[in-house]
Amino acid sequence: MTAENQKTVHVDLGDRSYDILIGPGLIAKAGREIVSRLKGRKVAVITDEHVAPHYLQPLAQSLEEQGIAIHPLTLPAGEKTKSFGHLISVTDHILASKIERNDAVIALGGGVIGDLTGFAAGIARRGTRFIQIPTSLLAQVDSSVGGKTGINSPHGKNLIGVFHQPDLVLADTDVLNTLSEREFRAGYAEVAKYGLIDKPDFFEWLERNWRDVFSGGPSRIEAIAISCQAKADVVAKDERENGLRALLNLGHTFGHALEAATQYDSSRLVHGEGVAIGMALAHQFSARMNLASPDLARRVEKHLIDVGLPISMGQIPGELPPAEVLMEAITQDKKVKGGKLTFILTRGLGQSFVADDVPASEVLSFLRDKRG
Amino acid sequence: MTAENQKTVHVDLGDRSYDILIGPGLIAKAGREIVSRLKGRKVAVITDEHVAPHYLQPLAQSLEEQGIAIHPLTLPAGEKTKSFGHLISVTDHILASKIERNDAVIALGGGVIGDLTGFAAGIARRGTRFIQIPTSLLAQVDSSVGGKTGINSPHGKNLIGVFHQPDLVLADTDVLNTLSEREFRAGYAEVAKYGLIDKPDFFEWLERNWRDVFSGGPSRIEAIAISCQAKADVVAKDERENGLRALLNLGHTFGHALEAATQYDSSRLVHGEGVAIGMALAHQFSARMNLASPDLARRVEKHLIDVGLPISMGQIPGELPPAEVLMEAITQDKKVKGGKLTFILTRGLGQSFVADDVPASEVLSFLRDKRG
Repeated sequence: MTAENQKTVHVDLGDRSYDILIGPGLIAKAGREIVSRLKGRKVAVITDEHVAPHYLQPLAQSLEEQGIAIHPLTLPAGEKTKSFGHLISVTDHILASKIERNDAVIALGGGVIGDLTGFAAGIARRGTRFIQIPTSLLAQVDSSVGGKTGINSPHGKNLIGVFHQPDLVLADTDVLNTLSEREFRAGYAEVAKYGLIDKPDFFEWLERNWRDVFSGGPSRIEAIAISCQAKADVVAKDERENGLRALLNLGHTFGHALEAATQYDSSRLVHGEGVAIGMALAHQFSARMNLASPDLARRVEKHLIDVGLPISMGQIPGELPPAEVLMEAITQDKKVKGGKLTFILTRGLGQSFVADDVPASEVLSFLRDKRG
Repeated sequence: MTAENQKTVHVDLGDRSYDILIGPGLIAKAGREIVSRLKGRKVAVITDEHVAPHYLQPLAQSLEEQGIAIHPLTLPAGEKTKSFGHLISVTDHILASKIERNDAVIALGGGVIGDLTGFAAGIARRGTRFIQIPTSLLAQVDSSVGGKTGINSPHGKNLIGVFHQPDLVLADTDVLNTLSEREFRAGYAEVAKYGLIDKPDFFEWLERNWRDVFSGGPSRIEAIAISCQAKADVVAKDERENGLRALLNLGHTFGHALEAATQYDSSRLVHGEGVAIGMALAHQFSARMNLASPDLARRVEKHLIDVGLPISMGQIPGELPPAEVLMEAITQDKKVKGGKLTFILTRGLGQSFVADDVPASEVLSFLRDKRG
């Protein structure tokens, strides 16, 4: 029985294909969805102390009703949990729970829990089955789809990990009602990103319907499904980021540099806000390089402002380091090939492309201007 | 220029295909072989304190002559190095050395260094290029081929890791001249295994030519090449061990149990000796189950005795635990599916097969008889 307001996005990756189910009440229905897809009758559930009080019990009940035994592990919330120390704990928990090939590991949480748990599932017994139950908008439209998993290193974010595709993603849209406005907006930055990459019609639709997306109307499930489909399409064509998949980094090179410059202090800047500023900067920089019109940059900025997202470095509370330090963070980012700078730039609305020979001097002088 | 006494085995894995070069002097020629295959000009070299004094300097010189910068890291020798602690060190070394997508990580050592380094290369930047220079016979014919990497867990050996195929394997047969007799014999157990799995002609050839293999005659390179080809063929058909690849575990279920029972104390038992005893037991157990003749078991035992390998538990120095404890180790092994015992058994010389419904009671009573 599929509810009318439930959508399914299929990620086509040959023998690693899987479904993303999107709709209300999916945590309560998780047991039924999982039991029909899993041979084993045992799961390890990894979550964090913010999510556990709300959703661990309903998930456990739903699984137990279907005869699935659950082994829960609750971790501290926050980006610091994406560490080797917690990777060791989660991997040990999976092995101690005797999760075998037909059983599964479930990530119940946002991007941090999904990335960490996916990595642990990817290395325990050289790969155990993995189910994502993302509880933030960001995780639903981005990190839970596509198989990128990982932890942070002193040398940079997400520098250590594996590609490990989930077997199922359950995006329960009810959980979004408990997110803060700021957290929802941050996830929305990634939604808008899919429009700006290569879906001008979707971006225009968002300009008209974003209020309904934010208020939880029917456009919300629609926007999530289109976003997941957009990511799934890119991942299906380039699972291991050899080319096309880099487009998903629109706004992320500037964004990551700003996250690093604010020491990943979420009171100053969260990932989605960095991406929003990064997308505004990428469009401005494209205009400066005469690739796209200044009008386009202004149109993108207007939409981000409408939904309440930041578009400039000046909006970040506190002092930012000089442009040279931001530049350093950019060249240390992993999208550097043989010393040249790779950026995602645009030629028009929804016409993003991978520019892999951007002169560092232009970027530096742009940053100097923009930092003010 | 390929020396006449050098052989190449191609591992056919689509876009992850690679060559294994086998022959003398390959460490001295490593720079030339690598420079022609690598876009980058930087490598991290991971080795151990036993291997480094002999081969790190010649390798470094060969690489530097071709303009390749090297970042070496020397670890303690021994099985204990396959730990999360050393995985963290190696991964950090790779990232600190700024090894990027076109550069490579080289494992210079035996199975421990290969497994650990391959794992670190597999997770650094979600996969960096990886070159194996195996310095033991065991590593040349087994662990360096096929992409299985990993570390040990308190829950069992090799329970944590990834599949990460190398881009090149350089098996320098000169290094085998410095191995101890015991170490060479232990590697030979895996050579004989390929005959017993599905190459009766190869096993018969080994029965006639093993002295030449041991003394370093032309049969040695031949035996290594046939072994690598045998493993490559299995891996090409079943990269991620969903079926056929399990055959490579012939002798390993009993062998692993004996390694665990001796606390991985190499003064009592090394892996290859465990495999030799395990292969003898697997053939005896196959006879007991009326699958193969007792004559075959005796023939296999005779060859193992000829080359100086052990064939029975009684040959292991010190006390062994009771049969029940060995049985416990077997059921904790990772080749357990849904509680049933999976063994590699045989129907004749070179006619091994995966038996996945072996009654535990039969195995236990067999172990009681054999433990004496």
